[in-house]
Amino acid sequence: MNVFDLETPSVLIDLDVMTANIQRMQQRCTDLGLAFRPHTKTHKIPDIARMQLEAGAVGVACQKVTEAQIFAEAGINDIQIPYNVVGPQKTARLADLALYNRVTVSADHPMVVAGLSDAAKATGITIRVMADLATDIQRTGAPAEEVIELAKKIDEDEHLHFAGLLVYPSNPSVRPALQEALAGLNAAGIGVDSVSGGGSGAAWHAHEMPELTELRVGTYVFNDWSCVSKGWAALEDCAMRVSATVVSRPTADRGILDSGNKTLAADRIQDGHGYILEYPGARIYQLSEEHAHVDFSACEERPVIGERVHVIPVHTCVVTNLHNQIYGVRGENVEVVWPVAARGLVW
Amino acid sequence: MNVFDLETPSVLIDLDVMTANIQRMQQRCTDLGLAFRPHTKTHKIPDIARMQLEAGAVGVACQKVTEAQIFAEAGINDIQIPYNVVGPQKTARLADLALYNRVTVSADHPMVVAGLSDAAKATGITIRVMADLATDIQRTGAPAEEVIELAKKIDEDEHLHFAGLLVYPSNPSVRPALQEALAGLNAAGIGVDSVSGGGSGAAWHAHEMPELTELRVGTYVFNDWSCVSKGWAALEDCAMRVSATVVSRPTADRGILDSGNKTLAADRIQDGHGYILEYPGARIYQLSEEHAHVDFSACEERPVIGERVHVIPVHTCVVTNLHNQIYGVRGENVEVVWPVAARGLVW
Repeated sequence: MNVFDLETPSVLIDLDVMTANIQRMQQRCTDLGLAFRPHTKTHKIPDIARMQLEAGAVGVACQKVTEAQIFAEAGINDIQIPYNVVGPQKTARLADLALYNRVTVSADHPMVVAGLSDAAKATGITIRVMADLATDIQRTGAPAEEVIELAKKIDEDEHLHFAGLLVYPSNPSVRPALQEALAGLNAAGIGVDSVSGGGSGAAWHAHEMPELTELRVGTYVFNDWSCVSKGWAALEDCAMRVSATVVSRPTADRGILDSGNKTLAADRIQDGHGYILEYPGARIYQLSEEHAHVDFSACEERPVIGERVHVIPVHTCVVTNLHNQIYGVRGENVEVVWPVAARGLVW
Repeated sequence: MNVFDLETPSVLIDLDVMTANIQRMQQRCTDLGLAFRPHTKTHKIPDIARMQLEAGAVGVACQKVTEAQIFAEAGINDIQIPYNVVGPQKTARLADLALYNRVTVSADHPMVVAGLSDAAKATGITIRVMADLATDIQRTGAPAEEVIELAKKIDEDEHLHFAGLLVYPSNPSVRPALQEALAGLNAAGIGVDSVSGGGSGAAWHAHEMPELTELRVGTYVFNDWSCVSKGWAALEDCAMRVSATVVSRPTADRGILDSGNKTLAADRIQDGHGYILEYPGARIYQLSEEHAHVDFSACEERPVIGERVHVIPVHTCVVTNLHNQIYGVRGENVEVVWPVAARGLVW
């Protein structure tokens, strides 16, 4: 199928660019001696995870147990869930998953550890648990002294295996806390299988983090306008483009595309809600649910109604999540239609 | 099934509240002598559209041709698409839909009208087209003098039927332009079947708009925190609640819920990303993809890890769109599981 036979809006993935992105990040990790574990939150598609594994990744990261089930059913069996899995239903589901797969989960509190232990005991298996170290983004995570106690608790639990430390994002600012935790674990005689870091920005500082043994990154596989604006990728490294139609030209300056926040998501960076490849000077200044409001005043040429354009979105991960399928293209040829298999799932 | 047997995050709809919302808006329109046409963008579920029709609605509005197909297949046959349908694939699909359904579409430019005419001619039917009048939101729409010319063009086209004027939002500020357009059409001897207004806020001013014959509103069916903040609904009129679990309590003040922007969408109003029913003083100050960051500092009581809370989201329409199914509940009883049938579709 020709890409112009697809209706708009459609999410297109340039397969050559994606393949190069996969190779480049893998090579970077290999060069640094780091295990690489791509985060599937960006694509939620088993076929793409397989390409990442074939390039050298050790496994994947998923953000939900139900997502991990999708990847496990697709034959991807080393799965990390860097999240506090809480509640008897979810921990039971996690334990079931761990029966036939190498599943590793994180925890930042003794109550989370206790829930995992109960589920492991009930299922008669051992669950692998990492201790989640707090960072300056102030999300989940415990400070170093609590992480040491948590690791002891995990290590002493006959139903759990202490699988190391988890850090997000693994920016150099977390190094003192990480060193404190590692020293404490060493003093306690507790082995650390892995120190897993993550984050698209942090990946560029991985060489300054010799404590890391593993890196988790997601967005790199597609890249997006936010990555470009931060200097993490060039425009030509952006594999995802949303094809859109100019459906209205109400004034000389204003144009309306058929891609609103139900297509591009609501994310915005300084210059707007996406970068239009055909009109670099244009600015998507507002989104309705099914309309993108574009200011073409800085463009010498302006589009006519019916013209097709391509938008590099601000944040790929939330765009994939909005669509039932995305299209792998090479030039004008649509080579593959991928259902976004793991989107929209509950925990 | 008991609602507490559902995993989190899940989107719950209080059926009693939704039913009352449907009745109230219908009654308001009936009292004003307005035809009521609920916009399905909020729920994207045929069963709910049927409840709206049974309460007295004349038909529905859909924002995409593919969505209209879902509702038509479910037996809902009076469908308005208040959008410029552009491009040969979409107009052909629209014409096919119009073969067996009463479909009305809008246009704001002669090029859009020409495309509709071509498709109608090719299919051998008549397409119903409204002229879209510009308003102060500066999205689509033509000014009054162009709308008159556009109506003439539609009226003269043997493949099209001029179905009236479309306004969004139909706030009183558009009245002078609307009166100018109506006067021009009257002078030209062109009949106006319908003057269709829309918008949740505009609905409260419908009594100040005697030119309107029809009203389109979507959000009222569920309501949301944005509606409450604008005075359009009370908290107890919000039918949608997202159940979430407290998965982390990293500090005395901070809590993390398992509902990020892939669950609640990224929308934010002054006070945050949603209202937590159990902790009215709490503030969801930030969302990651799968985490809500909550400040509980203003709350005397604070939740423990594992506790379930319920969030009234900022904007219901984009929340529904993120989920594969939502749950209709009465008290603690889950009465119905609705697939969000028309979400994630291309045009």
